[in-house]
Amino acid sequence: MRPFLLLPGLLLAMLPAARADEGMWLFTKPPVRQVKEKYGFEITPAWLEHLQKSSVRFGSGGSGSFVSANGLILTNHHVGSGMIEKLSTKDRDLLKHGFYAATAGEELKCPDLELNVLMSIEDVTERVNAAVKDGQSPDEAATARRAVIAGIEKESFDATGFRSDVVTLFQGGAYHLYRYHRYTDVRLVFAPDAKAAAFGGDPDNFEFPRFCLDCCFFRAYENDAPAKTPHFLKWKTEGAKEGELVFTSGHPGRTNRSVTLAQLEALRDDGFPYRLEQIFRAETLLRAWADRDLENARRSKGSIVGTQNGRKAIMARLDGLLDPALMARKAASETKLREAAPAAFARIEAAEKDANAYQTRLRLLETGDAFGKGGLFSTARTLLRAADEASKPEGERLKEYREPARASLELDLFSTEPIYKNLETLRLANSLTFLCAKLGAADPTVQGILAGKSPDTRAAELIQGTTLEDIAVRRKLYEGGRDAIAASNDPLIQLAKLIDAESRKLRQRGEATEEVISQAHREIATARFARDGDSAYPDATFSLRLSYGVVKGYTDGKETVPAQTTFWGMHERSEAQGAIPPFDLSEEWKAEASKLDPLTPMNFISTNDITGGNSGSPVVNRDGDLVGLIFDSNAPGLVSDFFYSDEKGRAVSVHPAAIQAAMEKVYHADRVLKELTH
Amino acid sequence: MRPFLLLPGLLLAMLPAARADEGMWLFTKPPVRQVKEKYGFEITPAWLEHLQKSSVRFGSGGSGSFVSANGLILTNHHVGSGMIEKLSTKDRDLLKHGFYAATAGEELKCPDLELNVLMSIEDVTERVNAAVKDGQSPDEAATARRAVIAGIEKESFDATGFRSDVVTLFQGGAYHLYRYHRYTDVRLVFAPDAKAAAFGGDPDNFEFPRFCLDCCFFRAYENDAPAKTPHFLKWKTEGAKEGELVFTSGHPGRTNRSVTLAQLEALRDDGFPYRLEQIFRAETLLRAWADRDLENARRSKGSIVGTQNGRKAIMARLDGLLDPALMARKAASETKLREAAPAAFARIEAAEKDANAYQTRLRLLETGDAFGKGGLFSTARTLLRAADEASKPEGERLKEYREPARASLELDLFSTEPIYKNLETLRLANSLTFLCAKLGAADPTVQGILAGKSPDTRAAELIQGTTLEDIAVRRKLYEGGRDAIAASNDPLIQLAKLIDAESRKLRQRGEATEEVISQAHREIATARFARDGDSAYPDATFSLRLSYGVVKGYTDGKETVPAQTTFWGMHERSEAQGAIPPFDLSEEWKAEASKLDPLTPMNFISTNDITGGNSGSPVVNRDGDLVGLIFDSNAPGLVSDFFYSDEKGRAVSVHPAAIQAAMEKVYHADRVLKELTH
Repeated sequence: MRPFLLLPGLLLAMLPAARADEGMWLFTKPPVRQVKEKYGFEITPAWLEHLQKSSVRFGSGGSGSFVSANGLILTNHHVGSGMIEKLSTKDRDLLKHGFYAATAGEELKCPDLELNVLMSIEDVTERVNAAVKDGQSPDEAATARRAVIAGIEKESFDATGFRSDVVTLFQGGAYHLYRYHRYTDVRLVFAPDAKAAAFGGDPDNFEFPRFCLDCCFFRAYENDAPAKTPHFLKWKTEGAKEGELVFTSGHPGRTNRSVTLAQLEALRDDGFPYRLEQIFRAETLLRAWADRDLENARRSKGSIVGTQNGRKAIMARLDGLLDPALMARKAASETKLREAAPAAFARIEAAEKDANAYQTRLRLLETGDAFGKGGLFSTARTLLRAADEASKPEGERLKEYREPARASLELDLFSTEPIYKNLETLRLANSLTFLCAKLGAADPTVQGILAGKSPDTRAAELIQGTTLEDIAVRRKLYEGGRDAIAASNDPLIQLAKLIDAESRKLRQRGEATEEVISQAHREIATARFARDGDSAYPDATFSLRLSYGVVKGYTDGKETVPAQTTFWGMHERSEAQGAIPPFDLSEEWKAEASKLDPLTPMNFISTNDITGGNSGSPVVNRDGDLVGLIFDSNAPGLVSDFFYSDEKGRAVSVHPAAIQAAMEKVYHADRVLKELTH
Repeated sequence: MRPFLLLPGLLLAMLPAARADEGMWLFTKPPVRQVKEKYGFEITPAWLEHLQKSSVRFGSGGSGSFVSANGLILTNHHVGSGMIEKLSTKDRDLLKHGFYAATAGEELKCPDLELNVLMSIEDVTERVNAAVKDGQSPDEAATARRAVIAGIEKESFDATGFRSDVVTLFQGGAYHLYRYHRYTDVRLVFAPDAKAAAFGGDPDNFEFPRFCLDCCFFRAYENDAPAKTPHFLKWKTEGAKEGELVFTSGHPGRTNRSVTLAQLEALRDDGFPYRLEQIFRAETLLRAWADRDLENARRSKGSIVGTQNGRKAIMARLDGLLDPALMARKAASETKLREAAPAAFARIEAAEKDANAYQTRLRLLETGDAFGKGGLFSTARTLLRAADEASKPEGERLKEYREPARASLELDLFSTEPIYKNLETLRLANSLTFLCAKLGAADPTVQGILAGKSPDTRAAELIQGTTLEDIAVRRKLYEGGRDAIAASNDPLIQLAKLIDAESRKLRQRGEATEEVISQAHREIATARFARDGDSAYPDATFSLRLSYGVVKGYTDGKETVPAQTTFWGMHERSEAQGAIPPFDLSEEWKAEASKLDPLTPMNFISTNDITGGNSGSPVVNRDGDLVGLIFDSNAPGLVSDFFYSDEKGRAVSVHPAAIQAAMEKVYHADRVLKELTH
């Protein structure tokens, strides 16, 4: 099914030139030589800086780019849909009908969206590593590392006002300080209806040919006015030709290419199966709940889509890891590194084994899988910990409670996003039942959490009893600090208190394991740099990366998959499926469809090396003009989590011509269109 | 949410008269006294015999009843839907459009449906127990018991020609020989379209008010002619009144009321969570697959419905077991028995602990959860084992390969049901991935099964490579016996061979544990009979049982739930849900709906004690006339797996007036209607 996985590892090792368009490159270490050699194009510092400062990171987990001097931002509909859902109500469903601000005044402020634009990068590896002394226990080392990183971030934040994050690269081989311009006033400008944006829904997700208008526009504001953004990408309606060199600039979330075989085995036997178990539960229960009632369906749409996306991505990756040929290739590829640093490999293996003993508890209690992760319980815990951490020196705090993170924390904590108690109850009941399944009903912590009730009853009682959905209550508790928290009888605050000691201990244990692993990877990275020279790029870390490639179809068995689709193909696919959801089109679309040129390019594929988090990344040509909008990988591309291959793996983008045509003919979004193409 | 679970156990114990309408009674030990005392009705032997011989068991897992002297059988659409699906093709979708044989000749023969009608019951407890000697190991005892049971069944089968099953009652407290008239030529006569039959689908399953025309009709044939069935139930269009005494006669599948607390804990911490994990996987993947393609959706409809039904049922039960108050009540209820037989309780507890060590492997390998249970792999294993077992003496064979079971085995093995290789591949890939998650990819058995491939690749290879979908191939292998099997290079036969030794050992271990538990329950049952006298009835065992109750609404919080719904309510519910699936109605229905009297009763509830397997059971009045058709429990009724309560728990039935009106006005099934009401 994925023949490239069956290639013996050595074959690729023998053909380094065949590494093709691999790499998610740091902007500080771009693939200048590679691109020059293969495509004859010179990446210059000015070209790079313009692209960097035109690129936007979405705090909600995606990418985007400025496309006008007045802060207009293009991203995927599926990156923006969380916000679009939060801006919707029962009577104004912006996912269903789309949104267009016909005037500037109608642009809709998002309740809790943070955007970051990368301003500078500084290598702080020496300083970070200097803080960790030989002979320290993992716990001591982790504490020392946390403290020095906190110091660096605070110092940078105080000096520049920029959001300042120390990013761990090469699994611990290097530490870079990233400084971001932060935007917290972001407004929705335009979104197509969800049927056009996500045509084919889950069934066609990670497939190609594909027909999605997966785009939307936001605008960054400062001081209640559109932000001035001199760096922005020029719109190029014609897009790129087949075979043309294109770049993406975005924020790939996480890859596992430089981890060791032992780490992949842990993912295969524990990490992915655990996560899938959770996803299967969540998807089933959310869909069942949505099916009961139309308003339920509206409230849970985004959660269902997100869950389904995760399920497909992880299943494809797990099947890759369960392929003994791929694992053999991995083993072969690390032979040399293993010879250079055998002790480091052994320490990682031991650390993974050790982690097995507490990993499930850590995920349940600290990550919050037992409490409907991200729901009202997490608000309760944030309030509890914000109060506790405030009394500690900066360097000893948990990182999300440090001063430089305050703006992000408060944006989230005081979000006006609607909270639906029935959905919260469903989530919490599901999570508590999952907790019982994983730890057993006889576990003392479980018994404490359930307080003598069944999971369903306990969840209903907790959600009915809490008042944390009220922003004023949250604010009062936040401002009241430890005294207010101590006095609170909110049942979720009390639950957070009940488990906090155990939960913090688990986190500490996890961080000590991470320290052992990153120290080992530091040794491995040295061997890697020696072996790979300037071909080395770090695994994805949700920080800005450059990738390059060409627009290109591929062959699947006997079938040729062309590089590009059209509106016509979309209507064909819809008909073939009897136009049942998610292959139906909105009333808005059907009313105007005849005005669209059926041969307008809609989606296209390229060999760029991307992964989750790259959604919304601009695709640019040699001139730095915007010629596409990344929104997906195809299924064969998903194993690139571990190995890049351009045999069938492709990045999937929306073509600018499709966005422009739909905005003009279907949605009549003239004001934005003018700004875009002026 | 289920306040009755919060009642202290003692309260019920103090009020034995309040046991209400509890009980799934043996026809050899009916609740004569109870019904007489409470309702003044005398259950006579003749009344009972007529009901017994009018009652039909569906081998596919449900109940039904004769409703004419010519073998016409009424059951639920959801009991028949597996057959209806097997009789459908891409171009003739009998689920979607329904089916009506306008003439006798058009009645459609089912590919593999076996029906049983109970002819007699004989207590063989003494004989079975006499075969097991003191001092035997559990393994020896299990072997001895298997042999004596095989002997009894063979002797009865040879003497009478009846299907003869020894049924274990009271968890091992008694053994009864059940003799059944067996029908293997069964034909589909009438089925409404699935939208009417399963209106509200999964969302409304286990809910009330409810609006389902969940019925269909089959006919038993013998010698290619309609079977003569002098015992049949008279149709009573008016049904039963609120408050009226009604009985059900059907085949409840399994309850866990007399198991011990330790057994419930094992269900809570292992059995149910395992099963739910499997269900969540299956439901998610089947739905995702169905969503990709209309024909996929048709092929998997029945599997999805079955999976969803299991999910809801188990979740409700698990939440019950996770309620400490319910478990405390259970503990209290067994105090006296525990005092009487402390060693028996301890042995069960130890046996459950011991089973933990191999249970997961047993389910995966022997039950077949690793191989897409029920698919082509199970055909392969049946062929392999049929050949191996044929060479053994009757008493040593696995029970499904004994002579008396041959007809059922062959009916199944040579079924003409359509086999879809894409669906088989999906199921097998899912199951193999589940196997890896449960046992780890490094397990030697797992590695043997995967043969160096990933689960997806291996599944595709096995299903593409097998030819067992061809009935002629199956027949040749079956008739060729051990030599043919030894020579076969079918990849599924080879896989079955590969795991058979380990799989059989696991089964043997499981049967030894069961033996320990049933011996212990024999001691407990003695104490139970002494305590409960004629109030004792055994847990459900998919054998014929009688229950009694009254038609009755209930109060849910402040809301009064009336005992009966109407066609009008169905149309109201449809409108409120915007008529989206599964709340939409078929074209057939909509075209004729105006002819239906909207006030016709549609579904009703009663306090009868039922569970899964009772689906399709007739509801009869004092005269033995058919006044309803059981098709569901409401959600509060599901905990009756462990505890019966009539506070909110109810059986849900289709009203005969609705069936009659729809057959007349919507489906124009005049021939059948006439036979039914003549």
